Amino acid sequence: MNRVYNFSAGPSMLPLPVLEKAQAELISYGDSGMSVMEMSHRSADYMAIIAKAEADLRALMQIPDNYKVLFLQGGASTQFASVPLNLIGTTKKADYVVSGQFSEKAYKEAIRMGFDAKCIASSKADTFSYIPAFTKDDIRPDAAYVHVCYNNTIFGTKFPEVPDTGDIPLVADMSSCILSEPVDVSKFGVIYAGAQKNMAPAGLTVVIVRDDLLDRALPGIPTMLEWKVMAENDSMYNTPPCYAIYMAGLVYEYLLEQGGLEAIAKINYNKANMLYDYLDSTDYYITHAQPAYRSIMNVTFKTGDEALDKKFASEAAKAGFKNLKGHRSVGGMRASIYNAMPTQGIIDLIAFMKKFEAENPKN
Amino acid sequence: MNRVYNFSAGPSMLPLPVLEKAQAELISYGDSGMSVMEMSHRSADYMAIIAKAEADLRALMQIPDNYKVLFLQGGASTQFASVPLNLIGTTKKADYVVSGQFSEKAYKEAIRMGFDAKCIASSKADTFSYIPAFTKDDIRPDAAYVHVCYNNTIFGTKFPEVPDTGDIPLVADMSSCILSEPVDVSKFGVIYAGAQKNMAPAGLTVVIVRDDLLDRALPGIPTMLEWKVMAENDSMYNTPPCYAIYMAGLVYEYLLEQGGLEAIAKINYNKANMLYDYLDSTDYYITHAQPAYRSIMNVTFKTGDEALDKKFASEAAKAGFKNLKGHRSVGGMRASIYNAMPTQGIIDLIAFMKKFEAENPKN
Repeated sequence: MNRVYNFSAGPSMLPLPVLEKAQAELISYGDSGMSVMEMSHRSADYMAIIAKAEADLRALMQIPDNYKVLFLQGGASTQFASVPLNLIGTTKKADYVVSGQFSEKAYKEAIRMGFDAKCIASSKADTFSYIPAFTKDDIRPDAAYVHVCYNNTIFGTKFPEVPDTGDIPLVADMSSCILSEPVDVSKFGVIYAGAQKNMAPAGLTVVIVRDDLLDRALPGIPTMLEWKVMAENDSMYNTPPCYAIYMAGLVYEYLLEQGGLEAIAKINYNKANMLYDYLDSTDYYITHAQPAYRSIMNVTFKTGDEALDKKFASEAAKAGFKNLKGHRSVGGMRASIYNAMPTQGIIDLIAFMKKFEAENPKN
Repeated sequence: MNRVYNFSAGPSMLPLPVLEKAQAELISYGDSGMSVMEMSHRSADYMAIIAKAEADLRALMQIPDNYKVLFLQGGASTQFASVPLNLIGTTKKADYVVSGQFSEKAYKEAIRMGFDAKCIASSKADTFSYIPAFTKDDIRPDAAYVHVCYNNTIFGTKFPEVPDTGDIPLVADMSSCILSEPVDVSKFGVIYAGAQKNMAPAGLTVVIVRDDLLDRALPGIPTMLEWKVMAENDSMYNTPPCYAIYMAGLVYEYLLEQGGLEAIAKINYNKANMLYDYLDSTDYYITHAQPAYRSIMNVTFKTGDEALDKKFASEAAKAGFKNLKGHRSVGGMRASIYNAMPTQGIIDLIAFMKKFEAENPKN
């Protein structure tokens, strides 16, 4: 078996020990005589799996007791609708920071649904190469919440610190940075994340919501989108995405074994800094994200020559560095280096980049 | 490895050859160097997987070309909201047949959302032991659709034939009977099914919708719930539940190898009839579903003595027949015998039932 370095933006690499464990117990879990995929979600075996997954996620992120953890379906895109449906009821207004394509989608979803959503800061005019600044004064005093995307997968930027929204609940899409470093959950009203980057295969969405925010849902919304219903039913109002939750649980367990998020963050900053240091050391490659806002999960760069960029992605793939082509809205290359990307993958990628630079001089 | 007979109502058994194939390629699919769980949903490898899954499902069910196949998330419970949001727009009225707990949930969801939903037939007063009859005259002429649940998992009943709703689109929840026998898709406007009984692990919902019904969505509904958006994006408006779709694809391929739905139905009717014939041959066990409406997927029965029922489920579990306890709303026992339950499982269960009867005479 010849594993590649997969730089996909998501779905993306999972830790090899996690895959090996899943493979070993795929046909019969423990002494159950059945696969986790075949278990009733109400069975004792499965209830233990989901309870441990939640407990381990709480331990990893140090989630305070007054926050509920929900294991849902539908991806972050479903939460773009669920957030206003669950939270906008108090004042019917919400403020959005537009720092990339997904935060713009979240903003537009609220508009589409007929709500009074306001964009209070945007970096769109500069191809989202930075996180736009805003202060408490920019927030409407009667906004029901402020929505941000904490790490912008496509553009390779992240919030350098948690923005201060005062008493107005901060809602953050953390799909592409959750579990990459410690974060103070108590500063957020809601954190949500699609699992397919740092947690599990696609098909699971984690929502972490402060419990005092559960009583604000608009009446008559789809039951499955109402966080309170899911909280009251421990994410089992209907059949949850059992296997994806099991896989997430294996990842959580693995991260705890590695020393938790402090240790993981150290590795992640080391990986990202190695790559950024190299990129800054040469004029051959140009980075997209402004240095103060650089993501440690998604590193965006280009040569400045589209033909060379194309050649780079193609030759990299042949050399075992997969999915380095950047998103069409930025062009160039993107290396998504989530938790499961080994440090050796970065070392080898830098060696490849040096070789490519030497072999492909610009005119 | 000691596999058990798992009679769970869902999630439930998967064919062993499917699990073995998934296990073999879990860490590296083909020569990709990565797990299917790690693949970008836009990669050539994954696009081939989802395309083959759809093609195989179309072949199995002989789905006409004017029907779209959607691979979604959220379970049938999400479709309880999506159905009215996508279809009720024309006349703002819809009619429901209430033949069990899930069809009642679908009906109540439409009411909850503020729509004019009417129950045109119900068997609730008789603990849903039959499918209530209705004719075209019972349907409101301006109903946007008629909703039915084709197989009632909890009560063990199914529609003996496709009801005639004339020009009014028939919408059917087939979660617990899809792929169990051939069905004439052209008689339905929409068929939907959670995957976790006969198709795949939980976390995937298949929607089969006639394409002329895609233009009826109410404005401003959540994007992720709008069938037309998902159809136009080939179920990839956002990241789909990739691994569950892959597993469904393996199941579809396996069913085609077994001879398709004609062959599967023959096996299923043989399995169910063996069990019903035995149940009818003794007074010891009492069946719940009226004979004309018996499901071939879920067989409900009891001894008539709650203590004996409890002992039965407990001793059966010890003997390797898992999850035979009936749903609390019916009591007694339920044997869910989906496609993946081997005929030998039925033979062995009947032998166990005979032994239990002999060893536990009623007073």
